[in-house]
Amino acid sequence: MNYQISPKKKPNKGINSPQWLKTIFKSFSPTWVACIPVTALIIVVWNTSAQAQGYGLPEGATPEQINTNFQVVLDSIFLLIASVLVIFMNAGFGMLETGFCRQKNAVNILSKNLIVFAIATMAYWAVGYAFMYGEGTPFIGTSGFFFNGSSIPYTGAESFEEVTQIVDGVEETIRVATAVPEAISFLFQVAFAATAATIVSGAVAERIKYSAFLIFSALLVAISYAVTGHWVWDGGWLSEMGFSDFAGSTVVHSVGGWAALVGAFILGPRLGKYQDGRTNALPGHNMGFATLGCLILWIGWFGFNPGSELAATANVPYIAVTTNLAAAAGGVTSTFTSWIKDGKPDLSMTINGILAGLVGITAGCADVDYWEAVVIGAIAGILVVFSVGFFDSVLKIDDPVGATSVHLVCGIWGTLAVGIFGTGNIVTQIIGILAIGAFTIVFSGVVWFALKATIGIRVSEHEEIQGLDIGEHGMEAYSGFVKEADIIGVGSATSSVSTGAPSSEF
Amino acid sequence: MNYQISPKKKPNKGINSPQWLKTIFKSFSPTWVACIPVTALIIVVWNTSAQAQGYGLPEGATPEQINTNFQVVLDSIFLLIASVLVIFMNAGFGMLETGFCRQKNAVNILSKNLIVFAIATMAYWAVGYAFMYGEGTPFIGTSGFFFNGSSIPYTGAESFEEVTQIVDGVEETIRVATAVPEAISFLFQVAFAATAATIVSGAVAERIKYSAFLIFSALLVAISYAVTGHWVWDGGWLSEMGFSDFAGSTVVHSVGGWAALVGAFILGPRLGKYQDGRTNALPGHNMGFATLGCLILWIGWFGFNPGSELAATANVPYIAVTTNLAAAAGGVTSTFTSWIKDGKPDLSMTINGILAGLVGITAGCADVDYWEAVVIGAIAGILVVFSVGFFDSVLKIDDPVGATSVHLVCGIWGTLAVGIFGTGNIVTQIIGILAIGAFTIVFSGVVWFALKATIGIRVSEHEEIQGLDIGEHGMEAYSGFVKEADIIGVGSATSSVSTGAPSSEF
Amino acid sequence: MNYQISPKKKPNKGINSPQWLKTIFKSFSPTWVACIPVTALIIVVWNTSAQAQGYGLPEGATPEQINTNFQVVLDSIFLLIASVLVIFMNAGFGMLETGFCRQKNAVNILSKNLIVFAIATMAYWAVGYAFMYGEGTPFIGTSGFFFNGSSIPYTGAESFEEVTQIVDGVEETIRVATAVPEAISFLFQVAFAATAATIVSGAVAERIKYSAFLIFSALLVAISYAVTGHWVWDGGWLSEMGFSDFAGSTVVHSVGGWAALVGAFILGPRLGKYQDGRTNALPGHNMGFATLGCLILWIGWFGFNPGSELAATANVPYIAVTTNLAAAAGGVTSTFTSWIKDGKPDLSMTINGILAGLVGITAGCADVDYWEAVVIGAIAGILVVFSVGFFDSVLKIDDPVGATSVHLVCGIWGTLAVGIFGTGNIVTQIIGILAIGAFTIVFSGVVWFALKATIGIRVSEHEEIQGLDIGEHGMEAYSGFVKEADIIGVGSATSSVSTGAPSSEF
Repeated sequence: MNYQISPKKKPNKGINSPQWLKTIFKSFSPTWVACIPVTALIIVVWNTSAQAQGYGLPEGATPEQINTNFQVVLDSIFLLIASVLVIFMNAGFGMLETGFCRQKNAVNILSKNLIVFAIATMAYWAVGYAFMYGEGTPFIGTSGFFFNGSSIPYTGAESFEEVTQIVDGVEETIRVATAVPEAISFLFQVAFAATAATIVSGAVAERIKYSAFLIFSALLVAISYAVTGHWVWDGGWLSEMGFSDFAGSTVVHSVGGWAALVGAFILGPRLGKYQDGRTNALPGHNMGFATLGCLILWIGWFGFNPGSELAATANVPYIAVTTNLAAAAGGVTSTFTSWIKDGKPDLSMTINGILAGLVGITAGCADVDYWEAVVIGAIAGILVVFSVGFFDSVLKIDDPVGATSVHLVCGIWGTLAVGIFGTGNIVTQIIGILAIGAFTIVFSGVVWFALKATIGIRVSEHEEIQGLDIGEHGMEAYSGFVKEADIIGVGSATSSVSTGAPSSEF
Repeated sequence: MNYQISPKKKPNKGINSPQWLKTIFKSFSPTWVACIPVTALIIVVWNTSAQAQGYGLPEGATPEQINTNFQVVLDSIFLLIASVLVIFMNAGFGMLETGFCRQKNAVNILSKNLIVFAIATMAYWAVGYAFMYGEGTPFIGTSGFFFNGSSIPYTGAESFEEVTQIVDGVEETIRVATAVPEAISFLFQVAFAATAATIVSGAVAERIKYSAFLIFSALLVAISYAVTGHWVWDGGWLSEMGFSDFAGSTVVHSVGGWAALVGAFILGPRLGKYQDGRTNALPGHNMGFATLGCLILWIGWFGFNPGSELAATANVPYIAVTTNLAAAAGGVTSTFTSWIKDGKPDLSMTINGILAGLVGITAGCADVDYWEAVVIGAIAGILVVFSVGFFDSVLKIDDPVGATSVHLVCGIWGTLAVGIFGTGNIVTQIIGILAIGAFTIVFSGVVWFALKATIGIRVSEHEEIQGLDIGEHGMEAYSGFVKEADIIGVGSATSSVSTGAPSSEF
Repeated sequence: MNYQISPKKKPNKGINSPQWLKTIFKSFSPTWVACIPVTALIIVVWNTSAQAQGYGLPEGATPEQINTNFQVVLDSIFLLIASVLVIFMNAGFGMLETGFCRQKNAVNILSKNLIVFAIATMAYWAVGYAFMYGEGTPFIGTSGFFFNGSSIPYTGAESFEEVTQIVDGVEETIRVATAVPEAISFLFQVAFAATAATIVSGAVAERIKYSAFLIFSALLVAISYAVTGHWVWDGGWLSEMGFSDFAGSTVVHSVGGWAALVGAFILGPRLGKYQDGRTNALPGHNMGFATLGCLILWIGWFGFNPGSELAATANVPYIAVTTNLAAAAGGVTSTFTSWIKDGKPDLSMTINGILAGLVGITAGCADVDYWEAVVIGAIAGILVVFSVGFFDSVLKIDDPVGATSVHLVCGIWGTLAVGIFGTGNIVTQIIGILAIGAFTIVFSGVVWFALKATIGIRVSEHEEIQGLDIGEHGMEAYSGFVKEADIIGVGSATSSVSTGAPSSEF
């Protein structure tokens, strides 16, 4: 295809009816005789209204075809933008998790968060999309492996009508889209699938083997996420029951959360996390990255939730506003809750509160009033503060970034909220949460144990102390900087300054 | 709402008129007799043209309704994208300000820049939007508190027409939008309001109390910004005078700039900034963050200025190009100005010059020719270099990131430029600048002094030396790294290397 | 222009024909007499169908004008979004290159990557756009310097039709766009032009003079890139031969790659890179920046490739999917290749593999099937790993970030792939690669040598050891942190930990 920039394109010049039509109008009076020009006129009127003229429009198309084509293109562009925003969330999760962990493991966390989208894309393309959206049973899709839905270069839309138009006297057949290309739905769904896998990454950070994580992610996206997604979003048994989850509080976030929880539990806590009954804080190493990650995720959610409308409609702005209000409310309540609870406003709690609000509104973003969105977000923001403490100190499940609290706990809350505030039936919502939770727990448990029994899932103690960057990747994230671990003296010196930082051994 | 992905949606199949119409055309000759089929034909033509068919379009709608609906949806999607870009500017300001300050205060600055958008959203939702865009007097809006303008799940557009269509034989009533949902305007305006508050954050950084900043931000967004904004952008007295500020050089940037200036003045300089008549540079700690922030702000401005068109029009590209030319010109002139002035090209001046160009073109981006945009940006880039020096060394007002020079000085320049190059009247422009400036100065002064008299606005000397991260938030931004302050010896060693870095005490 | 927010705008209320039309229909039977109302009716039908009503639409416009206007606006908005994504790639390249280099040169690299877009914008506005897209010969454009194509405030579209509408009884003339404003093509092309220059930045990093880089970038964008681009994308001699490069594997990436290669070769390797026959790794200082950069580039490519469709069509989603599949495949194969080759999965290879896949698919993204996109990306991912080693250890050309391997080698591969998998002719593709390569090599060589002979292109040895940040810009990137170079003892201590890090002297 020769690459001609738009202004160089000549607009198709169609017949300019209005002018000579007016002449006709002027030149006759409404008498019996009128009927001859009248008939001619009608034909002209018809032909005119049946021809679209001007820049970039197929001359031969009917008004209906042109309208349909506009809607198809509008939906395609909107869903592309939404997909890009959701894909950008990989950068958000990457920065967030890296910032919340220690510098000696930064390369490993960055590697996991970068490769996971590549792996997810391959796995979902080959298998996941077919299980989730293929024709099949109410329990699983069974067609469309190695997606090639719209593999038709230059047409995109695999469903189209052919139209004949004359350009500069030459007759050519062009295609007018009659339905949104499946390609864009595939891209949007790929981005969603990767999110579920990324959530796991944070909870198992700083001790998991890189190879084990890659295999788990591929299987989660290809099988588990796809199957439970099929139940809800492709007319499966849960959607038939009336289970409501507009953008995925359960289908995406609590699925990722369950897999994360099982993984963190089976892996066990990081060395030095729990010592002689004491729970140590292992502070993150780059709050700039973490905050940037949170803000990237915030805007990413404007693709995640409004994009789930799956079409360009006048309802999209409404969804964007509920999403933003819940995020803001969550950030405010989590900040003040941690302020009251611990005496100081904790940045990591502001971050997690915003994410909690976003996860909480995801299921109901198109269902609830604005003030309800504020309430849902506000409750999620309070919930996440206590949940983090509960998992960390009571259950003693070591989740370095609080992924379980944000995505599982608030994912469940958001799904229930649809039943409470929205249109969903609360019993059905509970059934959906339990069914999907049970499936994901069993699947994750089986895979994690299988990996543990074979290649192993946890790095050696020496490697964990030294840091996974050297052990797993043979490089460090911040070459040229002096770290506390390099000079114990200085290390312990600043430990006293930092909040509950463990001895630099860990 | 059941979540069906687009390709699964069946396109509505309407009657395929053209075919059998052509048959009719063929089957009659233009005689008197023609009139019977003619009449029938007309009805057919009318009915056909009155029905929109195919994917996603309401069958029962008229061509007018369909066209209106297209425009509404197109505007909604465009303004959503613009809003997302402007909201992303919070990440830009956060990275920029954090990078320009010292690492011991990074958590505090990140916290301020993150929470400020949440606070602003709540404050503008509850109060600000009503004061700014509610029905009222030429001086203030008085209706629409706790915005719920389009709180109608599933319809979004609160103004719509009902249309009846038959889908698979079932008759259903659907809504066709007749005006852009107020929701999207609210979201776009929230993003703008937050920007004004964020500007203040940089100027008062490294010494302000977190609590004082939160309260000030909420009041600025809820009251001051909203009231002066009403004067200009909701048909208030300044807009009636013909004051022209397309995207907010004054309404957003100089308002934030005045509030920042007053705050920085009342707070006083950071410890160690001015010693025995000497002005010390307190160098920023992460130029990577600062540069990333600048580039995020650059793309954010493509939402800020073109989005201010408030509709998807063919004028949008024009605005985007003037915006980009001014930014580029500002970056080039500021770099060479600082190169000539100080002997070396200062990265922070390249950054501030780009922002200066962007702020400068904001008022006139839709009014001026391309070469005028270049001139406006170029002058802003020169202006900002000397302005930073003037505030820093002459007025001795300590503004760590140069927010006053970028947003206030260049905001005023940009507003005047509309009078010089654009369509605005220069006298009216000056009146607007003075009126809004006076209001903002008085409001900010009152609030800052009230806070000072009550909870206090400045942290203790000990806390400031130790860093606000530990004092205000009980955590550090870069745990695990060795800082100069940890080892005085090394500290002073590198001080000699760094440019005029103060002794590590500060 | 008074800034009225959308919901405040009153929708134009047009005559509501359908109702009284139905009355007419009811009130007559199809007889000879019918002809009078019929004639009247026809006129009504015509007038009605010729009037668009409702929000934001020109009443006086014909359906054809309205359809054209929709398409124009849709294309404008889509290309604005694509432009923003491509411009955001400057942040991606900036973070990537900075992270891959040493902290002592970070300010210099950030400065180069920030100013280069400003310089490119000015150079392309003044000269480049005219050489590339101006009227002229098959070898160069010669008109349109200092682009002011659509310098018509408030109309944007320089090609339009005037339409008269009555708003509230007042007759006003408005303009309806008939072609996409050249402004948006200019913006999109500026973003592309800057990319070519940015690619060079990485290969010459850590030793080039700031001034020399600025001059080279300006000339590359203004002349070399523009001329070769004209050959392919503006109907020049290569496009007439049938050379196919949809989004710029050759026109952008290998052009940048050739210029980078010549620059790196003429500059020579960094001090300490090659010592007594040994090739030292000079590890990057911030893998967080590098990974963030890669993810920003990944989403930027969704503007780069789909945007090259230059219009909003149903083909856009298809291009987005091939792009994403190739990126993912490249990331996977490069990771496993480096894993097998070096024993550990190298994050920098995952990053370069993703970029390799993206560069590889750029030429053929609209031409190849999905599985072909996977193959193209997968091969690019393998290619880049061996290419980096080949340039680094065999040719001993020191390219700190691997720009030559990613952009030149994979750019060539992608251009050939169009001939192999796509519609292109393989011989023509080779001719295009050689012709553009030869021109760029000669141009770059002449400019680099001219600069070397005059202002010089390489910093002093002392400056290079000390770091370009202090030498060129008089500031450091990470003030307040202790670096290995500050304390040799600690430096060597950690060097043993880091992978082949050179003694802290370098």
